Parts: sequence; structure tokens; C-alpha cells
Amino acid sequence: MKPVNLKEKLKLFSDHWNPRIVGALNGQHVKLAKLEGEFVWHSHTEEDELFLVVSGELKMEFRDRTETVQPGEFIIVPAGVEHRPVAEREVEVLLFEPASTINTGGSEDPRKREDLDWI
Amino acid sequence: MKPVNLKEKLKLFSDHWNPRIVGALNGQHVKLAKLEGEFVWHSHTEEDELFLVVSGELKMEFRDRTETVQPGEFIIVPAGVEHRPVAEREVEVLLFEPASTINTGGSEDPRKREDLDWI
Repeated sequence: MKPVNLKEKLKLFSDHWNPRIVGALNGQHVKLAKLEGEFVWHSHTEEDELFLVVSGELKMEFRDRTETVQPGEFIIVPAGVEHRPVAEREVEVLLFEPASTINTGGSEDPRKREDLDWI
Repeated sequence: MKPVNLKEKLKLFSDHWNPRIVGALNGQHVKLAKLEGEFVWHSHTEEDELFLVVSGELKMEFRDRTETVQPGEFIIVPAGVEHRPVAEREVEVLLFEPASTINTGGSEDPRKREDLDWI
């Protein structure tokens, strides 16, 4: 029950596509991640996923369109919807999603991460 | 699946202690609220609750201590823990909690809100 400072936590790592856990509640995790480049197309069978942009500009590609998400904005990707996060320059995001969520969903990719670290 | 801008949504209302819903995922709601003054002591039997401060300085009182939460910081209050949010000046917060959560928990208060509006 201590305050968590997003900027301070984001200083603790620099690698991309490797979310860290910073909070847990109601079976959900709060995560922070740094994104750069194009991720893999994927979807999550069971989990809705929220991306809140802390810094940078996130392009969330869907099969039929792309949404641009700016700092202070969030976007929710419902379960089952194919999406691909793209960051032309580094983007820092806060993620809210079920603790069971795997970053690559049902797709295979070398950037798949399981057993995320707490910071 | 559209981006939601927190500041734009916060411009749509001015009353205090009356959260609005701005997103839903995995049985949880994302809410925005403006707080000013002292709320009622309460706890939530089943629900953990996250407060992310967007602007202002939030004092989260617990029975044994007080935590100060600044913009860009969040605090998680676990189910069953008595707490009282206090805002000496107006505070804007994003809340993340189960859709079932009532703002006053198990306490009675005229500021109790049910059937929250979506904005």
C-alpha cells in the first residue's frame, strides 16, 4: 500500500518489449513496458488489454485501421481482436490486463515473455 | 477501440466524488473522478481498488498512517482495508476496479453513487 511512481519505475529498465509488473489487483496486473519498432501481430483468446501511453506516440494497428495513442490516452483491445503495437520511436506504456496475459498472445515470437519480473 | 484522452474526458464534468466510467475490460471499470475535501471512511469487502493521480495531491488515509500520492503515481488499496481519500485541493484520479465497486464500500454516505454514467 505504497505509492508507485511510474517515471521512477521506468528508469529501472531500458529494454524493449519486456514488460515489468508494478502492481496486482483483482487478478489483474499493472505493468510497465518500453516499446520500439514493430511487434508481432497477435490476439489474446481470453484477455482484454489496456494500453495507457506515458510517453511517446503509439500506433495500434488493427487489420482494418490504425489508431494513434498519445501520452495521457489509453486504448482497450478486446479479447480476440488481432492487433500489432508499433512504435516508430520509443514509447512508454502502462498496461492493465489479467495476470494470465502473455505479451505475444497466441503468436510465436522471440520477444515472448513469461514469468515477468516485479520491479 | 478508440483512444480515450483523460484530460478531454475530465473536462466533461466538474462535480466531486461522482466517478464516471470511461472504459471496461475483464469485468473491471476504468473511471475518472474529481475529489475535493474528505471522503467517508470505508472499505470494500471484495474489491481491490487502484487510484492513479492525474492532477493534484491525494492523501490516502489508513487507520495507522497516511500516504501522499502525486501526479503520475498510483496506490492500490486491497479489499478489506479501511481507507479515506482526502484532497485538500481538487484532485483528478483514474480508478481501476471491478465493475461491482461502490464508491462508499460498506459505509453509508450521501455521496454514495451507483449506476455510474459513461462519458
